[in-house]
Amino acid sequence: MPVPAPNLYPDFNTIRLSHVCLNVKDLAASRTFYTEIIGLQITDESESHVYLRAMEERGHHCIILQKSDQPGTVEVMGFKTFDEADLDRAEAYFKGKGRPTSWVERPFQGRTLLTSDNMGIPLEFYHKMDRLAPIHQKYALYRGVKPLRIDHFNCFSHDVDASVDFYSDFGFRVTEYTEDDDSKKLWAAWMHRKGGVHDMAFTNGTGPRMHHVAFWVPTPLNIIDLLDLMATTGYVDNIERGPGRHGISNAFFLYVLDPDGHRIEIYCSDYQTVDPDLEPIKWDLQDPQRQTLWGAAAPESWFKHGTPFVGVDQKVSEIKASPIIAP
Amino acid sequence: MPVPAPNLYPDFNTIRLSHVCLNVKDLAASRTFYTEIIGLQITDESESHVYLRAMEERGHHCIILQKSDQPGTVEVMGFKTFDEADLDRAEAYFKGKGRPTSWVERPFQGRTLLTSDNMGIPLEFYHKMDRLAPIHQKYALYRGVKPLRIDHFNCFSHDVDASVDFYSDFGFRVTEYTEDDDSKKLWAAWMHRKGGVHDMAFTNGTGPRMHHVAFWVPTPLNIIDLLDLMATTGYVDNIERGPGRHGISNAFFLYVLDPDGHRIEIYCSDYQTVDPDLEPIKWDLQDPQRQTLWGAAAPESWFKHGTPFVGVDQKVSEIKASPIIAP
Amino acid sequence: MPVPAPNLYPDFNTIRLSHVCLNVKDLAASRTFYTEIIGLQITDESESHVYLRAMEERGHHCIILQKSDQPGTVEVMGFKTFDEADLDRAEAYFKGKGRPTSWVERPFQGRTLLTSDNMGIPLEFYHKMDRLAPIHQKYALYRGVKPLRIDHFNCFSHDVDASVDFYSDFGFRVTEYTEDDDSKKLWAAWMHRKGGVHDMAFTNGTGPRMHHVAFWVPTPLNIIDLLDLMATTGYVDNIERGPGRHGISNAFFLYVLDPDGHRIEIYCSDYQTVDPDLEPIKWDLQDPQRQTLWGAAAPESWFKHGTPFVGVDQKVSEIKASPIIAP
Amino acid sequence: MPVPAPNLYPDFNTIRLSHVCLNVKDLAASRTFYTEIIGLQITDESESHVYLRAMEERGHHCIILQKSDQPGTVEVMGFKTFDEADLDRAEAYFKGKGRPTSWVERPFQGRTLLTSDNMGIPLEFYHKMDRLAPIHQKYALYRGVKPLRIDHFNCFSHDVDASVDFYSDFGFRVTEYTEDDDSKKLWAAWMHRKGGVHDMAFTNGTGPRMHHVAFWVPTPLNIIDLLDLMATTGYVDNIERGPGRHGISNAFFLYVLDPDGHRIEIYCSDYQTVDPDLEPIKWDLQDPQRQTLWGAAAPESWFKHGTPFVGVDQKVSEIKASPIIAP
Repeated sequence: MPVPAPNLYPDFNTIRLSHVCLNVKDLAASRTFYTEIIGLQITDESESHVYLRAMEERGHHCIILQKSDQPGTVEVMGFKTFDEADLDRAEAYFKGKGRPTSWVERPFQGRTLLTSDNMGIPLEFYHKMDRLAPIHQKYALYRGVKPLRIDHFNCFSHDVDASVDFYSDFGFRVTEYTEDDDSKKLWAAWMHRKGGVHDMAFTNGTGPRMHHVAFWVPTPLNIIDLLDLMATTGYVDNIERGPGRHGISNAFFLYVLDPDGHRIEIYCSDYQTVDPDLEPIKWDLQDPQRQTLWGAAAPESWFKHGTPFVGVDQKVSEIKASPIIAP
Repeated sequence: MPVPAPNLYPDFNTIRLSHVCLNVKDLAASRTFYTEIIGLQITDESESHVYLRAMEERGHHCIILQKSDQPGTVEVMGFKTFDEADLDRAEAYFKGKGRPTSWVERPFQGRTLLTSDNMGIPLEFYHKMDRLAPIHQKYALYRGVKPLRIDHFNCFSHDVDASVDFYSDFGFRVTEYTEDDDSKKLWAAWMHRKGGVHDMAFTNGTGPRMHHVAFWVPTPLNIIDLLDLMATTGYVDNIERGPGRHGISNAFFLYVLDPDGHRIEIYCSDYQTVDPDLEPIKWDLQDPQRQTLWGAAAPESWFKHGTPFVGVDQKVSEIKASPIIAP
Repeated sequence: MPVPAPNLYPDFNTIRLSHVCLNVKDLAASRTFYTEIIGLQITDESESHVYLRAMEERGHHCIILQKSDQPGTVEVMGFKTFDEADLDRAEAYFKGKGRPTSWVERPFQGRTLLTSDNMGIPLEFYHKMDRLAPIHQKYALYRGVKPLRIDHFNCFSHDVDASVDFYSDFGFRVTEYTEDDDSKKLWAAWMHRKGGVHDMAFTNGTGPRMHHVAFWVPTPLNIIDLLDLMATTGYVDNIERGPGRHGISNAFFLYVLDPDGHRIEIYCSDYQTVDPDLEPIKWDLQDPQRQTLWGAAAPESWFKHGTPFVGVDQKVSEIKASPIIAP
Repeated sequence: MPVPAPNLYPDFNTIRLSHVCLNVKDLAASRTFYTEIIGLQITDESESHVYLRAMEERGHHCIILQKSDQPGTVEVMGFKTFDEADLDRAEAYFKGKGRPTSWVERPFQGRTLLTSDNMGIPLEFYHKMDRLAPIHQKYALYRGVKPLRIDHFNCFSHDVDASVDFYSDFGFRVTEYTEDDDSKKLWAAWMHRKGGVHDMAFTNGTGPRMHHVAFWVPTPLNIIDLLDLMATTGYVDNIERGPGRHGISNAFFLYVLDPDGHRIEIYCSDYQTVDPDLEPIKWDLQDPQRQTLWGAAAPESWFKHGTPFVGVDQKVSEIKASPIIAP
């Protein structure tokens, strides 16, 4: 069996990815990038932090920019649970898996459980976050690419099978995956909780590192607007790959790099995956349309560059594959 | 309290709306409309029935066209449950509510429970439906408005409060609603299970009748393509309202009528509602932007016309409101 | 013959419409509307005037807002000639037609001939206007509906045949027209110089009055953005008609009113008309798709409201037609 | 002076590019490509020829596919003149330039003058072509990328200065150009007659060869539709470059190859150039955004591959430039 059967009755109910805290060097420069270019809205800021939300979000933040002496690293990835009791069940679950757990104070969030996954990726779970008034119809506020919501995380893992097993066990369901026919090991997998193609994806490579965090936008024209804007405001070198359509997920995509090298995907054209009996779609590692339906190759940086999790050791993957076709 | 608090732990788990069976006069004419104009794909057909799916769906059908001597009526609305056991729990639940229940044979579906809601709307629940291979990337098949998936039902109810109570009790959650300030009664409400603005909505009026069934499409340009196509292929009189943007739901919409008068909404620009603590948005019945953000009034037919459920008696609503501002 | 044969060898060469001077009450309010909402760029401003250009234009101005004690009137419509000698030939031509002519000083323009058409519409012709550096690729400047260029004027005329004859004689070519089958008189006509559907159009009605001035934008999505912006920034009542597609010209359109009631059309989907042997397309006054391909009727205001030319007497048309089908 | 001043009063009036005749190996395969994928409409066909027009064109043909034993070559490029007398003036003009001239019979065209440019590119001029009824509003006919009209030719020239001089002399006007700062020679130039960025462009390289013929489509989404269609119908290897935006011309572009290797550009986002005093925009050969505003490099094939003119000898350019930055 190429991917584990989904665990439809996990110990606790994670409803979606929620936010990520990115360590940055120059808070002002990052603030400009995420507001003027990406178009996120500031919900709070201090000398050390900027909190941002996307246009349809009513939770307080989806991106936290944190001034750091380790810029270009990721502090933590956040997930929202269905209720408060899920947090206690999650604590028991991760302890049972031998993962460290602690209850941490997070501004604008209720009780928050800090733990980490099998590879060491720092994860935090909460149920309550400050709720804000809707702004999705305040059209004068829209800027940049008009981001509607955070959509997913994608991380390098040195053992994608092990990562997929770990997340499957607490209810993440695989929607699409790539298998290496030689080793019969997973090359990459896309897993969801909220009913889209993914909340979390893993790609083979030295890991754990964040490959990217993605935002959902309404149409490809918004992505074209972003390209035009970046190309003529000094950010042309921050455009890494795209626009294009992935075979996997069918997403119309663009990848850009923020001032610290954190990769941002801008994304539309998702599909609905709420059916528990949805069959994962298998892709062949030798099929170049898997990456780009239209055939254009991704640049080498896209396969190699990622941003580390602060304080987390990395391991090299044992699977070798041609950089031309991977991942 | 204007709308009931959501029941986050219902007796059984309905994951989404699934399909509707429409009674039609001329199967060939309806087949042409739904394939050539709307762009659905035929998955099975006989002398009496045509089964159709939208482009990203892997379940066998979302629309069943049924040749009937009572054309212009709706046979049944279908919903999918999370698992098989939910069907038995659903049976017990509806019996407990005093609703009729029976197990029915439906082609291409597994065990199917037929029941009805408090107003008499025929509902069927199943867990298993034949699964088909993906076609969302077979771009040569796309026609018409490029419908990706069935999105929601909308029904007239003569007592929206009672309808909302009934569906809330088995787990539907209100996302937006309109209240009549005079009577303090609900005028309309949008309720979901799958994480979008709605799977089912109710609007004040003589009911129960189906107001419309909606399909989700990628962008407003697909809707403009549909308008151009209908306007120049003999269907201009089937265009009823739009294009426009609803204040409620923020949807970019178009309403068209099929050859039997069943109303179809073509829709994009939904938002995500998986948070169980999502606050419903209240709209004022006196606010015309509620209906059309851009200010244009809906035609009278839109407030008055609906298609009955076959064999179900209707009642007149006691709430009176100016047709200009309602619903 | 329904429309006059084009005069392919006119006395002087008008290359395109160029600009219009609008009299306004509150210069600040108009400035906000044309910059923040429509998205034009200011090229010069004083206490009495604001000069604006659209994003791909390199001529100094396409709209002049002029503070006036006769707000809601039009001062003059401007056209550009192929060369300087055309101005002298134009002077002789209009004198020969018995029209008043004078040479006027206009800021940012070279030699400018002021005259008027057979109905009294004030027209000015110039060859040289200050040329500005391109900004069409300065994407950070784009706002509002992202207007690329002024596209055309449309005026009420009490005798469309006479207006069409007058403009045909100096080289305007009819692309589409509507004839009243009873009287065999023209109801409306679209005439061009620059190779699109029109630089100037005439519609039957009390005239002369300006019906609208139009701007060309890249896609229908820009028009949807404008609707969303106007609807949520206090301008919802300034939205008059649309979005829709005209049968005539095939334009995707929106009509809005500026703070003084000057009507602005936002427009895309033109076609190329440089062929001198292009056959005009005739429309039937009884065909409602002529106005709106998709069937929706225009509001009554659209048939009746226009803005007068300052100091110019108006006459009532003798053709009567049902307001439902006209113009 | 980097580019010649435009000749505003040429000996004869060419109004626009009109059509190209492409030699192909397998007429059926080419017919499928141009109708099903590109979406052109057949206006006539025989065992040896297929005539096609785009959706808004009323002239009989813009592409002629000609079965040939020299497939992958170009037979002739066609242009339309303002009137019949222009043809005689053109004959005298080209004779005066020492070019061969002859009057040829062309189906569906009136009197047709065959000649060639200074590099040997076969050119034909006509005034009359069979006029067809409009189909631009027959939306059921639209397929593929929904091409509206032929837009321009682009050819390799071994001496761009000489080519530009030649076309300038009969009235083509340069809109944008790239100069090699070392040699002070032109690297590339875009020249128009019809009021857009170009009817004909030249690029440095072994020539003469056709680099591409371009079609204008309404929006970038049509180009994305084409990519999806080609990628999933066996044409993925025919996608050569894009989508992207050129710095030069600001065009949103895609380049694809037909079954014989003729390059087709699909294009939108042009701007208007009817002003005779429009200043050409100069680009630096070292500026990579010239080619792709968003920074992505073009593939090597794009710089090297072109299709020869049948029977015309080629010469190698003397200008050397890094393939990374050229053209």
